[in-house]
Amino acid sequence: MQPMTAAELRARCRDGSYAGPTSGHASGIVQANMVILPAADAVEFREFCALNPAPCPILEVHAPGDPEPKRIAPGADVRTDLPRYRVFRDGVMFDEPTDISALWRDDLVTFMLGCSFVAEAALLEAGLLLPHIQETGFVPMFRTTRPTVPHGRFHGPLVVSMRPFSPPDAARAAAITAHYPMAHGAPVHVGDPAALGIRDLAEPEYGRAVSLRPGQVAVFWACGVTPQEAILNAKPRLAITHAPGHMFVADITSESTRV
Amino acid sequence: MQPMTAAELRARCRDGSYAGPTSGHASGIVQANMVILPAADAVEFREFCALNPAPCPILEVHAPGDPEPKRIAPGADVRTDLPRYRVFRDGVMFDEPTDISALWRDDLVTFMLGCSFVAEAALLEAGLLLPHIQETGFVPMFRTTRPTVPHGRFHGPLVVSMRPFSPPDAARAAAITAHYPMAHGAPVHVGDPAALGIRDLAEPEYGRAVSLRPGQVAVFWACGVTPQEAILNAKPRLAITHAPGHMFVADITSESTRV
Repeated sequence: MQPMTAAELRARCRDGSYAGPTSGHASGIVQANMVILPAADAVEFREFCALNPAPCPILEVHAPGDPEPKRIAPGADVRTDLPRYRVFRDGVMFDEPTDISALWRDDLVTFMLGCSFVAEAALLEAGLLLPHIQETGFVPMFRTTRPTVPHGRFHGPLVVSMRPFSPPDAARAAAITAHYPMAHGAPVHVGDPAALGIRDLAEPEYGRAVSLRPGQVAVFWACGVTPQEAILNAKPRLAITHAPGHMFVADITSESTRV
Repeated sequence: MQPMTAAELRARCRDGSYAGPTSGHASGIVQANMVILPAADAVEFREFCALNPAPCPILEVHAPGDPEPKRIAPGADVRTDLPRYRVFRDGVMFDEPTDISALWRDDLVTFMLGCSFVAEAALLEAGLLLPHIQETGFVPMFRTTRPTVPHGRFHGPLVVSMRPFSPPDAARAAAITAHYPMAHGAPVHVGDPAALGIRDLAEPEYGRAVSLRPGQVAVFWACGVTPQEAILNAKPRLAITHAPGHMFVADITSESTRV
């Protein structure tokens, strides 16, 4: 299908004519991981994010009850403008609707968290992403033995994504991604997976395995699955997120998040 | 009276035998501005602080209902361990108790915000604070025409403190305080008060006026009164703070907050 602009994609989600994945659309625009929590859970989760900025980069937090991302997409409505949602009750997935208007409450707080798309686009632009990563379409992700800094009921392991590079390309990739803290920033580790407690690169917890070619090193970045696992561990009465791959498409450009 | 250690001061507040100001006690230890809000207000205020880090530096945010500052003073209890509190209802001061145990609720969230004491101690140590500031004992504070970044119901002007220095000392003071972001960091402005919309240095909104000697320039720092004004503007149903000058005395050292 034809790539859509951010405004087109959100409008088609809103009128119910699109419910597919967001990758490939709105090139150069930030796509966000979305988390919605009741206020009492939100205040704990906010602090968990502040204590773990690499896996949980905060683009925007809405005032309670406000469905409009005033900073990253003024005029948008998080209740209707994503293609698909996941609804969790007490930490268990309950439904995967395409509209959450009926669930909305005055105490719900929306978090927009950065995702790795922006950093991956910058790597691609520098000629750095390798063909076989492009082929599987899914980066491998691993639970580590490194804990996040817990806060209240929110806790869990740091989850990382892995991309293989030659040593000089690994250094370039580190330098490039360091400019995008809202897309998880610089790598958290380069080299031996055992240093993160990862036993086997062939068995990722999420995504698909990618093997290292001779001479390549594994480069690990903090991953947006980290806050998702912390939310499941906290078991809030209600949590609403985007469905995997069905992100919130904002209006701000990727370049505006470069530091 | 004899200076008390942090633990002594908190214990005497807890058993009701001390209700006086905290300055002069626990030398070298961080004292914090404290704000307690219900969760729904807290999640808005948290973001207001994130958007305005110079006037609202966050030392710690507790999980809802948790009275223990686990990071800055493990074992302490904010319900009893400050000498005096202020209780606001709908933005209006209601009471000035010495214990808030009876007001405690499961949804109350405690914020510990940095105060300027740490930066002032560093200036003093460098021989930089001027005698007449020491004499009045109160730094002059001014509402500016520079707005804070609003969030939800929290909004208001940036409030600044002013200290006069010779131009070379102003530069040294700027360099020294830049190392203490948890004590408001580097100055927000040096020179003409009109640039901040301040009409008359002789008429501060808080504290006492200090006049510039010939050749001195006015140096302005973001001030912890800023979040207090934003809270009064937001008019939360309930807000509890320390009473002015009656701070929370932590266990972490001032030096541990240097960057």
